[in-house]
Amino acid sequence: MIVHSAQTIETRRSAFGTSVVTPAEQLYVRNNLPPPDASIVANRDAWSVAVEGVRNPRVLTVADLKTMGVETVATVLQCSGNGRSYFPSKPSGTPWTVGAAGCVIWSGVPLRYVAEALGGVAPGMRYLTGTGGEKIPDGIDPLSVMVERSVAITAMSDALLAWEMNGAPLSLAHGGPLRLVVPGYNGVNNVKYVKRVAFTEAESQAKIMSTGYRMTALGQQSKVTDPSIQELNVKSFVTAPSGDKSVRAGTVYVTGVAFSGGSPIRRVEVSSDGGKTWLEAAFFGPDLGRFAWRQFAIPLRMAAGNYVLVSRAFDAAGQTQPERGIDNVSGYSHNGWSEPAVKVAVV
Amino acid sequence: MIVHSAQTIETRRSAFGTSVVTPAEQLYVRNNLPPPDASIVANRDAWSVAVEGVRNPRVLTVADLKTMGVETVATVLQCSGNGRSYFPSKPSGTPWTVGAAGCVIWSGVPLRYVAEALGGVAPGMRYLTGTGGEKIPDGIDPLSVMVERSVAITAMSDALLAWEMNGAPLSLAHGGPLRLVVPGYNGVNNVKYVKRVAFTEAESQAKIMSTGYRMTALGQQSKVTDPSIQELNVKSFVTAPSGDKSVRAGTVYVTGVAFSGGSPIRRVEVSSDGGKTWLEAAFFGPDLGRFAWRQFAIPLRMAAGNYVLVSRAFDAAGQTQPERGIDNVSGYSHNGWSEPAVKVAVV
Repeated sequence: MIVHSAQTIETRRSAFGTSVVTPAEQLYVRNNLPPPDASIVANRDAWSVAVEGVRNPRVLTVADLKTMGVETVATVLQCSGNGRSYFPSKPSGTPWTVGAAGCVIWSGVPLRYVAEALGGVAPGMRYLTGTGGEKIPDGIDPLSVMVERSVAITAMSDALLAWEMNGAPLSLAHGGPLRLVVPGYNGVNNVKYVKRVAFTEAESQAKIMSTGYRMTALGQQSKVTDPSIQELNVKSFVTAPSGDKSVRAGTVYVTGVAFSGGSPIRRVEVSSDGGKTWLEAAFFGPDLGRFAWRQFAIPLRMAAGNYVLVSRAFDAAGQTQPERGIDNVSGYSHNGWSEPAVKVAVV
Repeated sequence: MIVHSAQTIETRRSAFGTSVVTPAEQLYVRNNLPPPDASIVANRDAWSVAVEGVRNPRVLTVADLKTMGVETVATVLQCSGNGRSYFPSKPSGTPWTVGAAGCVIWSGVPLRYVAEALGGVAPGMRYLTGTGGEKIPDGIDPLSVMVERSVAITAMSDALLAWEMNGAPLSLAHGGPLRLVVPGYNGVNNVKYVKRVAFTEAESQAKIMSTGYRMTALGQQSKVTDPSIQELNVKSFVTAPSGDKSVRAGTVYVTGVAFSGGSPIRRVEVSSDGGKTWLEAAFFGPDLGRFAWRQFAIPLRMAAGNYVLVSRAFDAAGQTQPERGIDNVSGYSHNGWSEPAVKVAVV
């Protein structure tokens, strides 16, 4: 792992491997506030979440939720700032490279089952708003720091209230005992230690929503009318070779991962000359569904020399990666294909 | 985990969860000999395996293998003795219940690519034989203890030489740096620390193959003509509720896993009265392919009382589970549906 700070830990490119899932202990960690006390995962079934904006609002414990349904979904979890270090403007914030992303398997209750059990969504609601269970420091306007995010209400069709990840109870670091998982959406929308899920008429007024996590043009102040960081955009990156060490001349299997915000990946191309010429890679391994990443591989015959490996993905919706990410004040949503290049010396 | 001995560690039923994969640290461990020294995973790429019974036999390192291809396959890994404790004859050996099984994701090179690179399989070969890298104690006939197993050569079409499991380099406990993975076959055929892979005319003469791991009728001595423990048979078990504690009256989601030796699972039925009446369960979660297990769930309305939960699976080849496992001298291949019952008190 690359440790940027106690709250921001990144997966090393060379640690991704090729078996699709990212182990919990290798998954990036990013918190907007210090996490709650670890005692909240001592009695997981007792954790409660208020469900509002339904006909019959209720506070439900995890034990209650477990009587309402079970589903399992693989998703890419990616921090909105993943790739921030590649932007020429050098935005402030954690200088993530490729490793603030992983593919994990969640298990929990579909949120739509919960809403149905409580009489359905109340009329007029347009957003799904999740609130984190972090303690708000005294003497601070809660709206200025609280983790509360709103996504379009249509996201509820895939959303889970998840208590498990990769076959184990969800750890505190990854949002246990209960996390709102919104498949296809950027990490920040997957609210950890979720204590309130509300169907709302308007977006949250919290700063993290109103002006935070917006695509703001360089030189501007973030404002509520800037595009909000919601669905993931199409992206790919090479995972091996990682560039950490030289590679033996001969056949080299170049592998990587590709994903989009819920649209299946249709094609991935790889270049070993920094994008002058491209070859189509093959997919391999199990397909965990449209919210997961797909693995790609291509065997390249490489003589001694220096190479620049890049990849670009094309999804079923016709989206592809630009050569360079769209630079923005906070350094969000980087998906340029050229900047995460791997420079490899073949000897 | 349930620790039977230092070499035999079982997953607790309540630890399986519902997110398909079994984390490496929760996967059962079973060794036939003490593992090699941990130094063998210090320099993984240097580990070598002799490939024989091909036109151009060669010793290949893991680094060599990585230039020959990459594939990723999810499989059920299950010890042949899983469920041994349920046999009425109380066979000697580890008294496994349901937890000597897991579903994991392997990554490595398809064995068929390796054989092709070495000129193809030599004529007349009928078996794929793998030999483990354990140290043979001095003064003992190697054949009496060595881990060497043969499977039908047709198994090579799915076999991998795997260096990774669940997104991380393969640990020593699970056979790293290199394991022969034979999807759809019982655990013992997935040779750990594999040092030799040979296409052979005959089965191995090692005791573990010649008379070991055979389905021997009660009261008989194991002999080479007894059926060998090869492909997994069709099986399922309930994972939750686990019976460890009482359950609240109301709706209870009964979940479990079902698998077969490469034939997709078509249907799973669940009974809460010990098999008198059955209901069809629904599959959920991603389908990781025909060698993985599928998860099933069914919501049952349960009033206060005592229940006996059992499940039975049906595969695409028309196989299903018997009510009771076929008792045998060594307690292998248990797949009776009645014995792994979960007794639950609903209060």
